[in-house]
Amino acid sequence: MSIPNTPYKIYLEEKDIPMNWYNVRADMKTKPAPLLNPGTHEPMKAEELAAVFCEDLVEQELDNTHRLIPIPKEIQDFYRMYRPSPLTHAIFLEQELDTPAHIFYKFEGNNTSGSHKLNSAIAQAYYAKKQGLKGVTTETGAGQWGTALSMACAFFKLDCRVYMVKVSYEQKPFRREVMRTYGASVVASPSNTTEVGRRILEAYPGTTGSLGCAISEAVEDAVGREGYRYVLGSVLNQVLLHQSIIGLETQAACRKYDIHPDIIIGCAGGGSNLGGLISPFMGEKIRGEADYQFIAVEPASCPSMTRGRYAYDFCDTGMVTPLAKMYTLGHDFMPSPIHAGGLRYHGMSPILSQLYEDGLMEARTATQSSVFQAAEVFARTEGILPAPESSHAIRAAIDEALKCKETGEEKTIIFGLTGTGYFDMTAYEQYNNGSMQDYIPDDADLEKGFASLPKI
Amino acid sequence: MSIPNTPYKIYLEEKDIPMNWYNVRADMKTKPAPLLNPGTHEPMKAEELAAVFCEDLVEQELDNTHRLIPIPKEIQDFYRMYRPSPLTHAIFLEQELDTPAHIFYKFEGNNTSGSHKLNSAIAQAYYAKKQGLKGVTTETGAGQWGTALSMACAFFKLDCRVYMVKVSYEQKPFRREVMRTYGASVVASPSNTTEVGRRILEAYPGTTGSLGCAISEAVEDAVGREGYRYVLGSVLNQVLLHQSIIGLETQAACRKYDIHPDIIIGCAGGGSNLGGLISPFMGEKIRGEADYQFIAVEPASCPSMTRGRYAYDFCDTGMVTPLAKMYTLGHDFMPSPIHAGGLRYHGMSPILSQLYEDGLMEARTATQSSVFQAAEVFARTEGILPAPESSHAIRAAIDEALKCKETGEEKTIIFGLTGTGYFDMTAYEQYNNGSMQDYIPDDADLEKGFASLPKI
Repeated sequence: MSIPNTPYKIYLEEKDIPMNWYNVRADMKTKPAPLLNPGTHEPMKAEELAAVFCEDLVEQELDNTHRLIPIPKEIQDFYRMYRPSPLTHAIFLEQELDTPAHIFYKFEGNNTSGSHKLNSAIAQAYYAKKQGLKGVTTETGAGQWGTALSMACAFFKLDCRVYMVKVSYEQKPFRREVMRTYGASVVASPSNTTEVGRRILEAYPGTTGSLGCAISEAVEDAVGREGYRYVLGSVLNQVLLHQSIIGLETQAACRKYDIHPDIIIGCAGGGSNLGGLISPFMGEKIRGEADYQFIAVEPASCPSMTRGRYAYDFCDTGMVTPLAKMYTLGHDFMPSPIHAGGLRYHGMSPILSQLYEDGLMEARTATQSSVFQAAEVFARTEGILPAPESSHAIRAAIDEALKCKETGEEKTIIFGLTGTGYFDMTAYEQYNNGSMQDYIPDDADLEKGFASLPKI
Repeated sequence: MSIPNTPYKIYLEEKDIPMNWYNVRADMKTKPAPLLNPGTHEPMKAEELAAVFCEDLVEQELDNTHRLIPIPKEIQDFYRMYRPSPLTHAIFLEQELDTPAHIFYKFEGNNTSGSHKLNSAIAQAYYAKKQGLKGVTTETGAGQWGTALSMACAFFKLDCRVYMVKVSYEQKPFRREVMRTYGASVVASPSNTTEVGRRILEAYPGTTGSLGCAISEAVEDAVGREGYRYVLGSVLNQVLLHQSIIGLETQAACRKYDIHPDIIIGCAGGGSNLGGLISPFMGEKIRGEADYQFIAVEPASCPSMTRGRYAYDFCDTGMVTPLAKMYTLGHDFMPSPIHAGGLRYHGMSPILSQLYEDGLMEARTATQSSVFQAAEVFARTEGILPAPESSHAIRAAIDEALKCKETGEEKTIIFGLTGTGYFDMTAYEQYNNGSMQDYIPDDADLEKGFASLPKI
């Protein structure tokens, strides 16, 4: 496929920022399975969810029918601080690889949170403010979501309480200070401040934590505190809705510059970035308007889709959340302390899980050292120091471009560059020193996780 | 002065990137004084400078006559990776301050080096490559220049040797890893690897270093190594020339959107950002086409212009460089270990020194804690975590905007936001914990520095 002579960065203007989010559920033939009440195994009702989440967000969570959801003006105004984000033609990477493929990346690291997480954080903070709440609680893995939420809460002058996975808290002390600079309280998880935290610490002394644990603590804190709700940076339908702005802008730039992607790639932890990037394109595919190859890239150490089961499971380790039907390794699965903290999650967005189950997208894994090797090539050629999470997508994009080199195909590849790696220099240091290790769970490790799946 | 309804970010397109740098010396009525040979006190000849600097850069250094210098295509291509940089209307900061002033900032932190330094790094690396050199040596303070040069050298596949001021090396270990990821060698300065480093360590045991020391070491290393030259990230005329791209883009955006600045503000260490930002506007002022108030903001701990002397001095502590006529605290002045490492330099660009001497610009100081207070306000309202250096300019911009609030004047203020603070979280942590200290040298401290001024 030939590409017209595009500028290096594909510019949209502020007036090109989408006015609506796109809800892929409206186009899905098989809808994602509903959240279940863990006690009754009945679908969660809006009023049950409203004890945990903001009212407007509950509505968005349950909405399988409206294709377009208007973006409130206050959120649009905030988006203008860093959107539209660049879609960049990776001409220097193409030259380095000597490939006939055309590679583009949608860069979401051009804001202080350093990742795409801000797209949903500002939406969730807005709805909390609108509801008159005092504050919100959340968990963070690599720290990107927590930073994003801190920024969003500072903007709307809301209190923000962040439970940060202990391994990231220790590897990334500077992340904590960014959050504090924005006025947030940050607690290492598991902590002694919640009942569920104390229980996990007893069961797994010395644990470095996981997103699943931190979610449990944040939910417990929110539910027990007057005027607070819990917010989550991934997995949920509402988050994929907000993140659809990534894909909508990408789609708009493709149309404006006559770019026709063959392959669209994203890293996959809970699914927020991948789901946001591919949603509008997936809609075209489902409606039969275009065909795309979608590739989800997971860490080999936490392979929810590629080696997990499609089953109802808790979203958290402490079993305080509703049950979600998703590809999961089991809520007891404790991922090894790899550096791509944002991908250390046992489950996967129910929307993406259903799309994967329906054969509409592919998934593959990458080992940590192969990911950092790709990150280094990218940094030196394209000038951006990528986050380890994002580098999973870079790895797959490079692999696909090298395949094109062998076959001579001029495929067009778009990948999501979700963020920057400034706070991941401990991991880069290990890679620079040649001391990075790869972790791949064996089948027995996985069986332990699967044993925790609830019987439904 | 009223402002039309501008978009939040003032967009230029890639085709708006200037094709030429602007050389303010061509318009200056009193030219900056020439560099002198420290032995003979005669003006340095091109062939003498060529032992230290690349040939094309020597030519640029000595050129007081050509107003426009074409930007080579290879550098223009690289600029497209991150330029044009945004000129942003700080509407949220204006709201927070409740000021009638209109505040804009030119943001140069939108690249992986995190600062404007990349503008000159890529130029200097290009000319080194063009000359067929193997590599370059340099010093870095806060690490921004070293990171920028590492990126530029990786791009042109040049070897890069960085002497990093010890206080920054220790406070910012992650900076070192960014540079290593781009393939650079990084040495803490003063080091035992050079003669001048050993001499400084003997004279000042336990010193935390300074830019002046690190320059001496890098120059010694370059001169003694086959196929290497030294490059410098500030102070020199050539650097201000390359950095003029900041001001040219700002000027272009002002024209496109009919913005008429009254005040233009920059932080001042060696002068690279301030000089680059104001040069084209200064040209207009000198030619009588417009009038502007220019404000340089120095740290109270290192007040070269506001408390220094206008005299010939060495650019480095080790007295290996030529003599430059500049505002200086004396090359023996050892700045306190404040966190704005990029501003810890005893001297000031000879161009800016002459403009200041001629009354064409003002200078003021700010204490560290007042700077971080401004940084926090800015981060929370405008969403960007600023570098401590840049925050000096924010401080002055806020002060001027608050003056407008008192007088009711609708002044238009533009300031240079030179970079991001992701690698400065140790300093932010001190500020967050309330343990930040201010350092202001007393007259006796300054007299010690002045005593080192050479007699000419």
